[in-house]
Amino acid sequence: MNIEDLLGYARRTGMFWPAAEIYGGSAGLYDYGHIGAMLKRRFENLWLSYFVERNQNYFLIDGTTLFPEKPLVASGHAERFNDVLIACKKCKTYYRADVLLSDLGVHLNEGATPVEVDAAVSANDLKCPKCGGPLGEAKPFNMMIDVALGPDRSDHGYLRPETAQSAYLNFYREYNLLRQKLPLGLAIIGRAYRNEISPRQGLYRLRELIQAELQIFFDELTFKPDLSSYTDSGMSVVPYETGKLESLTPDDLVSRGYPAFYVYHMAIIDRFYRNVLGVPDSKFRFLEKGGEDKAFYNRIHMDIEINVESWGGFKEVGGLHYRGDYDLTSHSKGSNKSMLAKSNGREFMPHVLELSFGVDRNLWAQLDLFFTNADGRQVLSLKPYMAPYSAAVLPLQNDNSINGTSRDLFLQLSRKFRIFYDSSGSIGKRYARMDEIGTPYCITVDYETVDSNSKNFQTVTVRKRDSREQDRVKLSELENYLQASLVIEFD
Amino acid sequence: MNIEDLLGYARRTGMFWPAAEIYGGSAGLYDYGHIGAMLKRRFENLWLSYFVERNQNYFLIDGTTLFPEKPLVASGHAERFNDVLIACKKCKTYYRADVLLSDLGVHLNEGATPVEVDAAVSANDLKCPKCGGPLGEAKPFNMMIDVALGPDRSDHGYLRPETAQSAYLNFYREYNLLRQKLPLGLAIIGRAYRNEISPRQGLYRLRELIQAELQIFFDELTFKPDLSSYTDSGMSVVPYETGKLESLTPDDLVSRGYPAFYVYHMAIIDRFYRNVLGVPDSKFRFLEKGGEDKAFYNRIHMDIEINVESWGGFKEVGGLHYRGDYDLTSHSKGSNKSMLAKSNGREFMPHVLELSFGVDRNLWAQLDLFFTNADGRQVLSLKPYMAPYSAAVLPLQNDNSINGTSRDLFLQLSRKFRIFYDSSGSIGKRYARMDEIGTPYCITVDYETVDSNSKNFQTVTVRKRDSREQDRVKLSELENYLQASLVIEFD
Repeated sequence: MNIEDLLGYARRTGMFWPAAEIYGGSAGLYDYGHIGAMLKRRFENLWLSYFVERNQNYFLIDGTTLFPEKPLVASGHAERFNDVLIACKKCKTYYRADVLLSDLGVHLNEGATPVEVDAAVSANDLKCPKCGGPLGEAKPFNMMIDVALGPDRSDHGYLRPETAQSAYLNFYREYNLLRQKLPLGLAIIGRAYRNEISPRQGLYRLRELIQAELQIFFDELTFKPDLSSYTDSGMSVVPYETGKLESLTPDDLVSRGYPAFYVYHMAIIDRFYRNVLGVPDSKFRFLEKGGEDKAFYNRIHMDIEINVESWGGFKEVGGLHYRGDYDLTSHSKGSNKSMLAKSNGREFMPHVLELSFGVDRNLWAQLDLFFTNADGRQVLSLKPYMAPYSAAVLPLQNDNSINGTSRDLFLQLSRKFRIFYDSSGSIGKRYARMDEIGTPYCITVDYETVDSNSKNFQTVTVRKRDSREQDRVKLSELENYLQASLVIEFD
Repeated sequence: MNIEDLLGYARRTGMFWPAAEIYGGSAGLYDYGHIGAMLKRRFENLWLSYFVERNQNYFLIDGTTLFPEKPLVASGHAERFNDVLIACKKCKTYYRADVLLSDLGVHLNEGATPVEVDAAVSANDLKCPKCGGPLGEAKPFNMMIDVALGPDRSDHGYLRPETAQSAYLNFYREYNLLRQKLPLGLAIIGRAYRNEISPRQGLYRLRELIQAELQIFFDELTFKPDLSSYTDSGMSVVPYETGKLESLTPDDLVSRGYPAFYVYHMAIIDRFYRNVLGVPDSKFRFLEKGGEDKAFYNRIHMDIEINVESWGGFKEVGGLHYRGDYDLTSHSKGSNKSMLAKSNGREFMPHVLELSFGVDRNLWAQLDLFFTNADGRQVLSLKPYMAPYSAAVLPLQNDNSINGTSRDLFLQLSRKFRIFYDSSGSIGKRYARMDEIGTPYCITVDYETVDSNSKNFQTVTVRKRDSREQDRVKLSELENYLQASLVIEFD
């Protein structure tokens, strides 16, 4: 599927579309419709259960998206959160330099400076791809979005560029509230904002995005999560050192010098994608960044990548970042507040391991991976617990008794599950509609269901999305039937 | 409790505190800590279950908070979303005119113009309350927060002032996706932004706030929800016409000319506050706005009010607004898109009924209402399903067997409930900590639990927060015990 096809699918099924669409849309901004909003909630809740709620030391918090200037000066964002901007002198089109150069076949490191961009433009004699005109001088461009608050609009601030900063600002209060124990995880699911120079690729480069991030604050001398149950599984990794895709077990990685706590979190991320979301092995990998491609504050930096056809290959949907003590040291300096932790007679600045996920990107990747259009069937084969609706109740014929039983069943199941009710159109059309949005079970109520002389009295037909097989199930057993399919095996 | 006491309570229990606190905070911005974030999720989920998910025609959607300029010009916000600003000529302090005048004992309508403010200042010879200096000329002040997007930051836009606008912008697509049926409800839980001139009163006047809003689009000729099961209950209403608090049944209201669909939604809101949240009858009311106090586009406008001690009396925590066809007509004109619906051969602009709730304000009101500090006990008596934690597991003695059983129990219960685990400190202190954050049940594991010779083998003690009574409950029955307490009786 290409980007336009996937956008078309998302639009016609009620998943997402450009924000302010009736006014012609706005670049890099998307709204979620009713199906997309449910899918997003599924992903967020799954993420929260898996990464946060299973761990007694990890906590969900929430913070404002409006920030005063100071913390984002201290964090380095005001100075360094830059892309390189380049504009055509003739048609005035603006480009993000690394994207433009990459489109033109010239690879630059992520941290390339304007001087390096100018050199590459000149060495390769690059022109504006739109009009063929000459490209102007490259300039740094801060991606944060400014806001001015207060009655005279003189309080300068920014929309937060990453949810991480809300966690860092609240670390010290939480650390003290939670009785000064490390490790301490603070998770946030929320919005971040970037003035992307050229938003594109559907939900890939957005100006307003949703992140699910877990910041783990720890003592690097004592943080040793139990790796023992993960040692056998090979993970797909492209280490910076070799630059080649390798299958490495946690033991392999530890023996190559990656800290055990880092490897542990690679392993749980790997299980999340492959087992919990069902991403095929060949489509998931860790890509280690190093040299100029690595964020300067990261000690170890791996992108979490999925091979997404509509994006043309492996693309970043998250990251695992060992940020050392950069964040707390910066905010401690910026705010003049000590953030030292104490343990076993030592005083030290906690280190941070960041698990960062783009919610929109993951959602897009799920659709790209699991939507198929073959043999005249359009099916979204999400894991049942990821599907927007868990089941549909479909009265097979228009009959008072069938309709009544169907409504009762809908109301009963709706207490525990998200259920779609549909009584209009042929049963084939109704099945097709449910397949297209990934509903794993279609429950039909028919004459036999309501006929006390039938051997199928008080039973319904359950049709399975993927196999199209049908089971006859007792009404009294339906809740358990659905429940069993929604159990998530985390381990 | 006063505002400072409630803020202190929120801070020490991990609920909320000023955003960017380590940098001195920022006016009108609050972050939620781990307990507050859970409480907020409880409220949001409860709201969603009650107002949205029970109704097959109502859907959750989500939209960006960044808006281009056009829709907010069309909606009237660019021109009319104003407060009146007044500044002291001497000390340069800025005031929101209606708040300043009200503090100084002069009541003005919400829609008072700068000219009317100047007249009131002059007539009452008002001075700056801070320095006694003369007050300058009143001016309109647009409360929206500007943003500038794009590579040359030339795309002017705003942070959305209310989630409602996201629903209006998406109405027509959803209407068509959902097969052109009315009524159609679009719900959003999300952030809205206002450059409040003088943020204050804790979570009352915020610059970044969370709203839970349901916009119901309907045909005013046919929208007739079933009022029959609500006719008996008297509701506390202050009608604009009489200006007096009256107890009125739905029948009374209908006979006074309020449309049945409006009264129906008053009734469900009334049940939500009184039955589901447990707000005492005397502390809940509807206040009808009329004349200059009513938003000009509203045909009927009632504030949902709770008597909140720390705010000094009844204050608005939500609203029920019959907005007529104002919103869709405005956006239809602004975007040049027809939004007419069709039904029974008629073409018409759907009308909108808005159910609007401030999440932060409701959360604050809950704490104010249900936190008590008496007889040496600090207790948050929230409904069990609203409490951040559903139960705590507390090993009574430090013993391997007790600890093991406690851990197992914690892990088992954690799959279905949000459970706190606490093994440190005296049992009295642990109970007190749970009372303070509202945990309805404390489960203690003791020697008898693990002693196969005891008649209490495999049982635990369940202590109830409000009565402090203790039950001995079988381990095998705990899940059902907790589950039963968490069932929400909506009707």
